[in-house]
Amino acid sequence: MEITRHNFKQVIDQVSEAVDEASFLCIDGEFTGLNNGPAVHGFDTPQERYDKLRKGSLDFLFVQFGLCAFKYETEESRFVARPFNFYIFPRPLNRNAPDCRFLCQASSLHFLASQGMDFNKVFRDGIPYLSPVDEQQMRDTLDQKHATQQLNSPPFTSGTAHTSDSTRTIQVPAEHKDFIQQTLTRIQSFIDSDEDTIQLEPCNAYLRKLIYSTVKNKFSSSVYLETKVGEQNQHYFIEVSKANEELLKKRGEEKRQQELDELDDAVGMSKIIRMICQSGKLVIGHNMLLDVLHLLHKFSYPLPQEIDEFKSLVNCLFPRLLDTKLMASMHPFKELVSNTTLGDLEATLGKEPFKVPVIVFPEDFPAYETAQEHQAGYDAYITGRCFTIMANYLGKFKSQSKPVLPGSALLEPFVNKLYLMRVQDIPYINLTGEDLKPNRDHVFHVTFPKEWKSNDLYQLFRPFGPIYIAWIDDTSAFVAMSKKDQSDLAYKMLCEGVSYRVRRYGEHKEPLAPHGRKRPLSFPEAITPRNGEGKRLKVTSSDVGRRVSPVTQRCITTILEEAEDKPTTETGEEEEEEHLKEDGDEDKGDLKEEILAEKDNDSTQAQLFEEPQVW
Amino acid sequence: MEITRHNFKQVIDQVSEAVDEASFLCIDGEFTGLNNGPAVHGFDTPQERYDKLRKGSLDFLFVQFGLCAFKYETEESRFVARPFNFYIFPRPLNRNAPDCRFLCQASSLHFLASQGMDFNKVFRDGIPYLSPVDEQQMRDTLDQKHATQQLNSPPFTSGTAHTSDSTRTIQVPAEHKDFIQQTLTRIQSFIDSDEDTIQLEPCNAYLRKLIYSTVKNKFSSSVYLETKVGEQNQHYFIEVSKANEELLKKRGEEKRQQELDELDDAVGMSKIIRMICQSGKLVIGHNMLLDVLHLLHKFSYPLPQEIDEFKSLVNCLFPRLLDTKLMASMHPFKELVSNTTLGDLEATLGKEPFKVPVIVFPEDFPAYETAQEHQAGYDAYITGRCFTIMANYLGKFKSQSKPVLPGSALLEPFVNKLYLMRVQDIPYINLTGEDLKPNRDHVFHVTFPKEWKSNDLYQLFRPFGPIYIAWIDDTSAFVAMSKKDQSDLAYKMLCEGVSYRVRRYGEHKEPLAPHGRKRPLSFPEAITPRNGEGKRLKVTSSDVGRRVSPVTQRCITTILEEAEDKPTTETGEEEEEEHLKEDGDEDKGDLKEEILAEKDNDSTQAQLFEEPQVW
Repeated sequence: MEITRHNFKQVIDQVSEAVDEASFLCIDGEFTGLNNGPAVHGFDTPQERYDKLRKGSLDFLFVQFGLCAFKYETEESRFVARPFNFYIFPRPLNRNAPDCRFLCQASSLHFLASQGMDFNKVFRDGIPYLSPVDEQQMRDTLDQKHATQQLNSPPFTSGTAHTSDSTRTIQVPAEHKDFIQQTLTRIQSFIDSDEDTIQLEPCNAYLRKLIYSTVKNKFSSSVYLETKVGEQNQHYFIEVSKANEELLKKRGEEKRQQELDELDDAVGMSKIIRMICQSGKLVIGHNMLLDVLHLLHKFSYPLPQEIDEFKSLVNCLFPRLLDTKLMASMHPFKELVSNTTLGDLEATLGKEPFKVPVIVFPEDFPAYETAQEHQAGYDAYITGRCFTIMANYLGKFKSQSKPVLPGSALLEPFVNKLYLMRVQDIPYINLTGEDLKPNRDHVFHVTFPKEWKSNDLYQLFRPFGPIYIAWIDDTSAFVAMSKKDQSDLAYKMLCEGVSYRVRRYGEHKEPLAPHGRKRPLSFPEAITPRNGEGKRLKVTSSDVGRRVSPVTQRCITTILEEAEDKPTTETGEEEEEEHLKEDGDEDKGDLKEEILAEKDNDSTQAQLFEEPQVW
Repeated sequence: MEITRHNFKQVIDQVSEAVDEASFLCIDGEFTGLNNGPAVHGFDTPQERYDKLRKGSLDFLFVQFGLCAFKYETEESRFVARPFNFYIFPRPLNRNAPDCRFLCQASSLHFLASQGMDFNKVFRDGIPYLSPVDEQQMRDTLDQKHATQQLNSPPFTSGTAHTSDSTRTIQVPAEHKDFIQQTLTRIQSFIDSDEDTIQLEPCNAYLRKLIYSTVKNKFSSSVYLETKVGEQNQHYFIEVSKANEELLKKRGEEKRQQELDELDDAVGMSKIIRMICQSGKLVIGHNMLLDVLHLLHKFSYPLPQEIDEFKSLVNCLFPRLLDTKLMASMHPFKELVSNTTLGDLEATLGKEPFKVPVIVFPEDFPAYETAQEHQAGYDAYITGRCFTIMANYLGKFKSQSKPVLPGSALLEPFVNKLYLMRVQDIPYINLTGEDLKPNRDHVFHVTFPKEWKSNDLYQLFRPFGPIYIAWIDDTSAFVAMSKKDQSDLAYKMLCEGVSYRVRRYGEHKEPLAPHGRKRPLSFPEAITPRNGEGKRLKVTSSDVGRRVSPVTQRCITTILEEAEDKPTTETGEEEEEEHLKEDGDEDKGDLKEEILAEKDNDSTQAQLFEEPQVW
């Protein structure tokens, strides 16, 4: 169901009902861009990744929000899906509302428009929203204004103002005296006439203001002025009606109510998000980290600096989250799913050994008989569809015949973990505990001249086996060794380089104190961090495996520069995102660019660049 | 004529011809926003205004460019108008092209979409562009790449690479060995078969890279690989064809040519702008400062810091400019034109005493029988229409019967001056000389508590006559006195204020040296600036009048806070922009907001906010 500002009020109760009745809720967001900051890379820590997204992704606009409420009907053994597709746009509803400036990324807009996103509808008909902070501020302003009005009421009783606050005594500038005098004369004859209303000639705001002020002084409450807009919104003019104090009072109250209603309208989309939060239901998304960040930032409070505070905020607002991309990357699905992009996942889950449950749509909802990828409502629906299939598969796996619904212990390993894209050894952000701290003793921080490309790094490390490169910028990268037992040897051989510098990951993150040795020892003991950080770095790779279960431990297997993006085939989400070079170029700049892509709308990225056709 | 990337190549010759034949060119731009920085105000100097626009307006995107070429046909005594409406969007054409991030302003997008701007067409079909700097960079990259390829040609002669530079030796990771072996076997049987091409199974970029590399090693030039995209752009797969060295060489050359053609396409819109610059023709716009800034910044070079350097750049690229908004504000038009917004100006110029010349459209062009305001092509046409009417009126004024065309001495007073919106005493930026330096001895810089509103300032200055307020921020404003002879007295009385501080304009701009007096003397002599600045401040108001002629000297006539926006009725452009309060509110925040509006698409602004209907 498409929802714009025009039908928002009519359907909000329907949304509320759907949320109340739902077994679980699926969400998806579409944005005007993905990132505008330093590149993410394969060895970001959760805090680093969070920082990059927080600083680089939140200035983009949330233009479409998909919500699909799934309700399980036990008797019929079927799901009822209610997908809502909200168009969102922060059009300032009145002059007190902030006029938002936001960022766009050319490739994202082109992709979404090509996929059928109707931006005209977004900009023209999008539902507005206010964060709680903005709402409170506008409410305070309005309260204050109404309080002042009450104080000065009844309106226009005093023709001349005495208090400094309400003084509106007007000195009419000489060149406008004639005009104002004519207007006053006209209104006087209107008052004496049988007419109910007259319209004054269109004039500019300054003259209108003069009219309002002088009429107020001269005629007090015997007339009522209202500014109206001419045809095609070309001109403003004043309409004058006869009035009395009672009528004016009533109009004043109507006006105040109207302003409160307008504020209520301005809150708009925020009501839907609050509804979801308050439901406490399981909220499911596919690769949902960016969606969660945007939802929090735009509809609740500015994101905190520390990831731990962010986790608390998420737990508070969305107590139960599940990311289907992570779920599909974990046991027992990872063995069966080669590509976890939403479209590919849906295709895979439509075949054996998976079974698709019955999902029906109520009458007023689209049955989505053709795919509408990257329409947020459709993607939310597909996410839920994938979830039900995987959840049921889990039950079958455990010889359980009933469908697996939220609340089942079988789902617990997947709950409250947000998929971390492209990080080599940390598959997710753990919302309800400490994040994984994998051993990175085999990872080096390397700096080098700007001219170096991937191949130079491969040459440098060639004696020690395959490597994986995570570019940081033009002159630095993390290099991880496939043969971990070669790490010490490699370090010993390379740490004295002239044109380049090789440092261990731990040493880079936690440099030796200034009074320490200038050149680090070539044994790992030498760089044991000196404080709590040590614990983090000492977790061994096998520890990770145990603690992560059932998540697979990712492994490093390649020596190709493409490995920057695609170290293993299991991280299929990147498949559609990559625009890798197959024609033998080695422009590291591109690779960084590729790594930037950080959302699930990624077949996207693949289409933004024509792949080279020749090698 | 609508131009997108789809018909750009077909019509570019037609545009070129139209420009070559034109008597003059009219332009207009539409942007995704107007400003994102400190508010402009009525006492900005040209340098200050330039700084504000340069810093606050250029991150918005130029989404539509209107060009209307007017050609005068002497025999027929008529103009032929050729309006082109270009949709512009910097979609990255390939992976080497920058993926632009740009800013949008919610109110601007809502307004343009409501006026019928098709943003879907912009984002999907917009013509790309490259600045000369970006173009050069991409050209260098391509040249370098082609040079390397030449060096290594003929392709694939060496199955094993020896030089460090071209080394592409591949170690196939263990888990992919089977897959690669199967693929090689399949290609071998293909080579031995009668088939011309085969398609390999879709696989991810990493595996494709492995295939490319191993096939290159094994089969050298006997096969040709090409990556293709499956239906609905869902999957990439490799197509294998039989080949030989000659064919590969030819394909390589084709590829290089294709890349050069692609770069040429990417330059796109910049060609049109260069065409206009190179024509040296009179270029006409309506309130065109922002258009000129965007054109320079996006299609030539980043704007310099100093306004004088900016002027040199403009003179270089657009040697002759004319701003119809300024023209309409100058003698002899200002006496006849009450509102200079484009729509109102057109309406005024359609009536006596003006005469509309014959303007015809060639067949392939829209005749614009209905208004399409804020479509850039239409606005460019209307601008030209207004120009011809005003130019001919000048001739009639001088009893000249021939139409007045560019080159006529009658137009000289209007050439190379860019309208400066809302500045009280400097009507334009003078592109070919020094800017006006009006006397501002009657202007005060006032700081005060955040709680103050306009009314508090009116109260403060009430004993000294009407004032004009130009808000700077929450706690400061410039206040100009209408009765200039009261300035010294006002200063004397107010300079010792406790909760506020009043300083003369000159003193504010050029504070006394630290060793100077802390509290300035209350006589103007005391604050005579000590250096060259003095000259600037000493230009008297009557000097301005003489030097500006035929521009009217603006005057200050009001005491209303609306005066911030609308000190005189002659500056009609603001009429449609304002969203002033007529209901007695005094929120200075709004007024600042209003002042922000800084472009000619302003009926815009009026519609963004519903005017209060009640007072």
